[in-house]
Amino acid sequence: EITEQVIAFFQKKTLVGKKVLITAGPTFEAIDPVRGITNHSSGKMGFAIARAAVEAGAQVHLIAGPCDLDTPLLATGQITRTNVVSAKEMHEATLSAADSDVFFAVAAVADWGIAKPAKEKLKRQGNQAPSLEFVANPDILLDVAKTAKTKGGKPYPYCVGFAAESNDLEKHANEKRKRKDIPMIVGNIGPDTFGSDLNQLIVIDASGSKKIAKAEKLQLARQLIQLVAKKI
Amino acid sequence: EITEQVIAFFQKKTLVGKKVLITAGPTFEAIDPVRGITNHSSGKMGFAIARAAVEAGAQVHLIAGPCDLDTPLLATGQITRTNVVSAKEMHEATLSAADSDVFFAVAAVADWGIAKPAKEKLKRQGNQAPSLEFVANPDILLDVAKTAKTKGGKPYPYCVGFAAESNDLEKHANEKRKRKDIPMIVGNIGPDTFGSDLNQLIVIDASGSKKIAKAEKLQLARQLIQLVAKKI
Repeated sequence: EITEQVIAFFQKKTLVGKKVLITAGPTFEAIDPVRGITNHSSGKMGFAIARAAVEAGAQVHLIAGPCDLDTPLLATGQITRTNVVSAKEMHEATLSAADSDVFFAVAAVADWGIAKPAKEKLKRQGNQAPSLEFVANPDILLDVAKTAKTKGGKPYPYCVGFAAESNDLEKHANEKRKRKDIPMIVGNIGPDTFGSDLNQLIVIDASGSKKIAKAEKLQLARQLIQLVAKKI
Repeated sequence: EITEQVIAFFQKKTLVGKKVLITAGPTFEAIDPVRGITNHSSGKMGFAIARAAVEAGAQVHLIAGPCDLDTPLLATGQITRTNVVSAKEMHEATLSAADSDVFFAVAAVADWGIAKPAKEKLKRQGNQAPSLEFVANPDILLDVAKTAKTKGGKPYPYCVGFAAESNDLEKHANEKRKRKDIPMIVGNIGPDTFGSDLNQLIVIDASGSKKIAKAEKLQLARQLIQLVAKKI
């Protein structure tokens, strides 16, 4: 932790005085008291961005789905963390904190929740398959993006989306960027990166795309933070 | 690790020369390359039983679903671990290793898998809810129990089931014991124990039930191991 603080001290202080909001990790949509739908997101990329933002001098609010990671650089006092479980909880926590300079939507949020989670554990009914009724979850990134205002000619908060696609990454990612009406999206090949310490990114904005070569997630996060710092 | 080995050394050696097979943790049933259905099992109870069995002198084979726990007492050479993801994989690994003196079915195994997991990440189709087709998973405990033979008048392997119920624990657990045709089942209140280091057990066999008072999972595991050692 001491070493980490020393390393942090030597990073470029490009976000001093800025508030950065980050969602990270998976969500868990309860089916009953024990079962639920989730995804392979480990939270590592979002937590790396939180660390890099603190290193750059920002005040960071990290909203985390269920994951086993420690809050980075907690001792600096520059980071607060809110733990949530479902997409609905994450939506609520994030919208309450949307008054920020930058928003990184890194969490892998479930598109659908279960309409009526069972209060008691569902018993197996012989060979009859369970039937799950789904309900659309609120779209966190879209709803934060809708609150964006302009401040000195620049969007506030500056919204950065993430896209985890298993195919046609750049195309799908840029479509997502336009659909959500956000200035920047970061693409990473989901199944390859989930749980890993390594990642490879494509950063796409209105002016085009830029690849960040395979590296530790923390190295990528630092590069991404410097790219974003120039935009705000 | 050294301290743990010293502590292990002083436990009762009631399982020397015995082979113990244990499943632990949740399973993860893929919906597509990133999403899936899982449950809140942390694996802690199963891993505690594995540790207690090694301490008692057994040769342990631990078959673990996705969980972040270290293999206990690895340095003793008395434990091997197989990592699996889905219920189907866990079934295969467990049946291949069923030639054991005791089998503890601690894992929280999904009753249902997804019939045809998508090869590419499913895209959100506007407001149309996803439809998931389920397929019944093989029943690991039932299938191991079916292989049980009698050796010196005692069942081999001696099968111990686990029941995580949110209500009517003793009744549901004993029903499960009879349905699976196993000599012993251990009940614990699922939502209370998942992820916690504490637990509270009811051990049920044909002669009746015995409560083991709330304690650290490792303490409970040691008591359970001593109960089972008397049966084989």
